[in-house]
Amino acid sequence: MTLPQMMRALVQVQDGYAGTQTGPALADAAPFLALRDIPVPSPGQGQALIKVKLAAVNPSDIHFIKGEYGQPRVSGQPAGFEGVGEVVGGDTPLLGQRVSFFAGASGTWAEYAMTDISGLIPCRPDLADVDAAGQLVNPLTALAMFDLVRDSGADSFVLNAAGSQLGKLLIALGRDAGIPAIAVVRRAAQAEALLALGAAEVIVTGAADPLAQARALFKTYQPRILLDAVGDQFTADLFFAMPNGARWVNYGKLSTDAPKLAALGQLIFQGKRIEGFWLTRWMKEVDPARIPQAFATIQERFVTRAWTTDLAGIVPLSQAMAQLPAVLAMPDGKAFIDPAA
Amino acid sequence: MTLPQMMRALVQVQDGYAGTQTGPALADAAPFLALRDIPVPSPGQGQALIKVKLAAVNPSDIHFIKGEYGQPRVSGQPAGFEGVGEVVGGDTPLLGQRVSFFAGASGTWAEYAMTDISGLIPCRPDLADVDAAGQLVNPLTALAMFDLVRDSGADSFVLNAAGSQLGKLLIALGRDAGIPAIAVVRRAAQAEALLALGAAEVIVTGAADPLAQARALFKTYQPRILLDAVGDQFTADLFFAMPNGARWVNYGKLSTDAPKLAALGQLIFQGKRIEGFWLTRWMKEVDPARIPQAFATIQERFVTRAWTTDLAGIVPLSQAMAQLPAVLAMPDGKAFIDPAA
Repeated sequence: MTLPQMMRALVQVQDGYAGTQTGPALADAAPFLALRDIPVPSPGQGQALIKVKLAAVNPSDIHFIKGEYGQPRVSGQPAGFEGVGEVVGGDTPLLGQRVSFFAGASGTWAEYAMTDISGLIPCRPDLADVDAAGQLVNPLTALAMFDLVRDSGADSFVLNAAGSQLGKLLIALGRDAGIPAIAVVRRAAQAEALLALGAAEVIVTGAADPLAQARALFKTYQPRILLDAVGDQFTADLFFAMPNGARWVNYGKLSTDAPKLAALGQLIFQGKRIEGFWLTRWMKEVDPARIPQAFATIQERFVTRAWTTDLAGIVPLSQAMAQLPAVLAMPDGKAFIDPAA
Repeated sequence: MTLPQMMRALVQVQDGYAGTQTGPALADAAPFLALRDIPVPSPGQGQALIKVKLAAVNPSDIHFIKGEYGQPRVSGQPAGFEGVGEVVGGDTPLLGQRVSFFAGASGTWAEYAMTDISGLIPCRPDLADVDAAGQLVNPLTALAMFDLVRDSGADSFVLNAAGSQLGKLLIALGRDAGIPAIAVVRRAAQAEALLALGAAEVIVTGAADPLAQARALFKTYQPRILLDAVGDQFTADLFFAMPNGARWVNYGKLSTDAPKLAALGQLIFQGKRIEGFWLTRWMKEVDPARIPQAFATIQERFVTRAWTTDLAGIVPLSQAMAQLPAVLAMPDGKAFIDPAA
């Protein structure tokens, strides 16, 4: 295949960290991104070049371009952590095949992206592109965090931002394992769909005295893990309402609150603890055999509809600067970028 | 030995938990304690009766009588967690011997106390009573928490309330293991003594910009464990100034602050975590062979003066209601109660 010299890409326009904490909302792309024609990256030793078919847009992408993620930005580099596409370069037997991947050296919001050969995930032919494009960040995080739930030995777990894509994946995992989620959401309108998906209970934070409801539910369900993508004061209050041995596992920061630890003594006397989850670290620390096994599970779940990808919209790369904020602002569903359009 | 029917004891006058968080200061004993003549407890199956020679007064005792500890108060029961005395009752070969012990059924601030036979710790003849009376709560906590420091793999650790009895034990352990403490204290007057004891550095919280000093020190020393008996906002700030992988281990609550988590994302991206340490839980979870080994270490350290007990005062039991608050208010040193006086 003859590759072009140049490609279209959404590149970052800032370097490093911002030192802010504004959450994953994106009112305007212009302070962080620009649509540019840049050279197609050239794979070095151990790298593969992928012609991107569809790229995912996750909250972590937005944290990243805003300089609020665990890795520094590099001005001029394409953004976008994950996607699906065809391997078109690099010394790999997967050349010509459709793969999911986590972009390393050059991001997925571009016509071509680059990653390490070891990170290419072959896709089953019956896996849809929207499922393939997003099979890494959210589904792998869901599987990894659900291990914490299983290991906690409890019959249920607590989950906030439960209406998110990741939340829905976790609710379905809980349903299938018989360890149902107590789902925390902001809007009452989300409750019915999450109960239908298999949540044991739904707590609506906007309702009257949601903490009293939580306390009553925790007495019945005795959940030991709180999976938290919000990090606000209500999350801290939930944690302190949970039973002995509870773990608050923070993996995202939708809120800009700095929550107060009003009952620190529970860490001493009730053996509670507060920790974080980061997929990048998990992948480094987990038994390597676990990763391909996880991707087999993920693809099987999507193909059999045990998991589904709710679509907010597919934004053409050429229109992403203007359209991405509006699609991301939709309350449910996941956004993608189509580099060919 | 013929035992009396009645004994003098400082008994609790309240039941259960207070629901407050006022810290371990004691302005007045009367709301919590009363000096009474009560029946000498009668040991049941597996229990030993001890004639108390000297009883320790620890911060955890004050938390307990104020209803702010992990166990509920029982009105009418003698207070006091630890002490030294002679075994005078119970089916044990230690009858007649001097032992240190953690009071179970009936507390140590009394002429007689009771505990499980399994919890009796024989004392070396060359161990002084002031060291024997306090060899459990503080020294065992110090050894147990210093394991966390060793396991962290760092060359130093951070310690607040470093001028406390427990703080000094930890500083000496760090000195002897070549993993020196960065000691955090409130008063500049404490600094010199702690440096002499073996602390690597002293941060005085009352000084100008102690956080800037901490940041500079952490860059050099890369400490991974913060042993915290204070639980205030400055402690949280210290934690967030520490390097990747840092653990905030809270074991006491001298402050009534509810510290804010201003950089929760560090739990995700820097693998930090916040947890508690409670000796009671540690003793249940640790390899049982570790406990007698630890007491051999503790007694050896006191006898060889690797550890010393700084005395604030020995209060006669008969005068404790009036004198205890003043002795506890002394800035350094440990208080004891003499049940025979």
